[in-house]
Amino acid sequence: MARRKRLKRAPFPKLEPIGGVALGAIECGVAYRGRDDLMLAVLDPGTAIAGVLTRSLSASAPVNWSRAMLPGGRARAIVVNAGNANAFTGRDGDAIVQATAARTAQIVGCLKKEVFVAATGVIGQIFPAKKIPGKLAALHRRVRPDGWNAAAAAIMTTDTCPKGATRTARIGDTTVIINAIGKGTQMIAPDLGTTLNFVFTDAKIPALALHKMLVHAADRSFNCITLEGDTSTSDTLFLCATGKARHRRVTAHNDPNLRDFRRALAEICLALSHAIVRDSAGAARFVTLNVTGAASFKAARKIGRVIGASPLVKFALSNALDPCGRIIMAVGKAGERANRDRLGIDIGGVVVAREGAVLRRHDAATVMAHLNGDDVNITIDVGIGRGRATIWTSDRSVGYG
Amino acid sequence: MARRKRLKRAPFPKLEPIGGVALGAIECGVAYRGRDDLMLAVLDPGTAIAGVLTRSLSASAPVNWSRAMLPGGRARAIVVNAGNANAFTGRDGDAIVQATAARTAQIVGCLKKEVFVAATGVIGQIFPAKKIPGKLAALHRRVRPDGWNAAAAAIMTTDTCPKGATRTARIGDTTVIINAIGKGTQMIAPDLGTTLNFVFTDAKIPALALHKMLVHAADRSFNCITLEGDTSTSDTLFLCATGKARHRRVTAHNDPNLRDFRRALAEICLALSHAIVRDSAGAARFVTLNVTGAASFKAARKIGRVIGASPLVKFALSNALDPCGRIIMAVGKAGERANRDRLGIDIGGVVVAREGAVLRRHDAATVMAHLNGDDVNITIDVGIGRGRATIWTSDRSVGYG
Repeated sequence: MARRKRLKRAPFPKLEPIGGVALGAIECGVAYRGRDDLMLAVLDPGTAIAGVLTRSLSASAPVNWSRAMLPGGRARAIVVNAGNANAFTGRDGDAIVQATAARTAQIVGCLKKEVFVAATGVIGQIFPAKKIPGKLAALHRRVRPDGWNAAAAAIMTTDTCPKGATRTARIGDTTVIINAIGKGTQMIAPDLGTTLNFVFTDAKIPALALHKMLVHAADRSFNCITLEGDTSTSDTLFLCATGKARHRRVTAHNDPNLRDFRRALAEICLALSHAIVRDSAGAARFVTLNVTGAASFKAARKIGRVIGASPLVKFALSNALDPCGRIIMAVGKAGERANRDRLGIDIGGVVVAREGAVLRRHDAATVMAHLNGDDVNITIDVGIGRGRATIWTSDRSVGYG
Repeated sequence: MARRKRLKRAPFPKLEPIGGVALGAIECGVAYRGRDDLMLAVLDPGTAIAGVLTRSLSASAPVNWSRAMLPGGRARAIVVNAGNANAFTGRDGDAIVQATAARTAQIVGCLKKEVFVAATGVIGQIFPAKKIPGKLAALHRRVRPDGWNAAAAAIMTTDTCPKGATRTARIGDTTVIINAIGKGTQMIAPDLGTTLNFVFTDAKIPALALHKMLVHAADRSFNCITLEGDTSTSDTLFLCATGKARHRRVTAHNDPNLRDFRRALAEICLALSHAIVRDSAGAARFVTLNVTGAASFKAARKIGRVIGASPLVKFALSNALDPCGRIIMAVGKAGERANRDRLGIDIGGVVVAREGAVLRRHDAATVMAHLNGDDVNITIDVGIGRGRATIWTSDRSVGYG
């Protein structure tokens, strides 16, 4: 039965201050009126940064800027505006990013290359050149260690709620904190990029180690969610480490002392990813797709992403119809190896298909009850190898009303 | 403005008899009650056949059978049922196809390998083993040279109208006839396969030449339409030539005497492709996407197919919103080369973007009027090379109701 009720969204958590991070927001009027739409995070000297950006070939001007600055590995400020993505804005768009970085550097007292920029909103709309530089000084006066909620609210577009996550981790005998804010409700099929998310920690970790841990965490969180299957021009994920915590020295991403940090970072990324799925338009069900038996993790993820983004699978899930046939269609479309005669499907823990065919007898009542619930769990074994991945999606997404 | 009215569908044309072809339909009850759902085409000895089949890796049992038989190049019968695709039916599904081919061969008086099978309908549903073989004798008594309309109606599933096309062509001094029937309204994103379509001619053309002409025509018709972006397990396109027409001998596909035949075949494939787009669920607009300036025809087609299948582009087109931003997003997602700073977009003949940015001044009223019409034409120049392709899609498709 189709339902109109929405999924419960995760509440915004209480984010404690992190040494070396101050944030604020202001109304800048790039696209919205009567709400904050410009966010600034100021970072103490010595902050390391890593990032993962969209693989879109029509990336926005802010993405192009950040891609060029990331190898420097140092950040003193992040400027983010909502409402206009500054994408498909030609050379004017690049000039606006340059002006934003230059003015921010002047105000914060840092190098231009230590300023990172992100934007979200409409693509291909002319960007008012002077609005952001003109507001940065006033915005800079507003940044505070407890500005998390205001910052998370200022980066929203079609989001119905601000999104955040927090964890602590032990590095040696020291407890470090990780906070994150994020946004996203559509154009979510990150092609090894991600959506707009900013993670901060007081840990002292070199940029290269941050980068490797971030890529690993993103690959199993942001890159494992898919909504309508479209890829944003603006997806951005940053991880900033201010180094204020006094823990023993760590060097590489695989340093044993970073084990708990990696766990916490993975949890943060997963929490934000799931918050995005829950906030997708028209979502009445949170859908977990476990793909097993694939040739590799990447093959399993590809199959899961194709299933999760298929409009016809989503339509079945929206209407609590048996999705098996459409799942099989999507497996065939994904292009990764699968063994037709060993394919199996479980829905809500009930075996509905084995050895390449739907079972003549299975507990259809239990399956239907599960498909009508808030949380749908489906396992697809493609009968080839040991590769497995979990993909999260919703039954509907923006644009399907 | 969103509209609920449907696109006008093409009427079923008057198809004249073709020497060597007889068709009929019967109610067989595989899935439907009270309508014909089984179609048989009987072909005279000497008929050559070529085919293009889905590239889905979970292809149906009928597709697997037909793929194995096509290299023989000879056909005496085509059996098609609607309502159950006989896909994801395990080894039972293969046995049903074998039994169908064996019984047809017995009744028609031909070899099993000269019997071709296709099916359309639900995937993963157990197929009643005996229904088709049990009806074939009665069905065989019904086949007639003028059975086109009955045959086209029997292969419908969610189609709202039977689909057909006819053309004549000159081979030397002789006029040959080409008739086709088809079906399809969803799961239309043929991955170098196609949807369910059967083309017949009285021309005398060897199977290999038929094959090459058919692949070329399908590449620029069925493979240039996309609805929701999902790929069927069952897509099948056959071209049968009975050889009854007495024209001068032709050998290869590039024989100059086949020029007019190639033109007519291309027109037939295009007419059926467009009929499928017009019959897609919820379609209120017929959308033509011209992609120019790509690295190659294939690159242009890929970009066009990604634009045409993007849920967010379709949502914009459904609601007559400016689609430029979402088109740019889709170009970036397609993965083919494009030059951001040379990208241009025309809508309804009006230049709206040039050199990588939306124009500050363009005739927005004309563009809006065009986007609100029945036929939407958009040209996207990606600024790289000379490759071009035209893609046809609708503003909505099944499942978006």
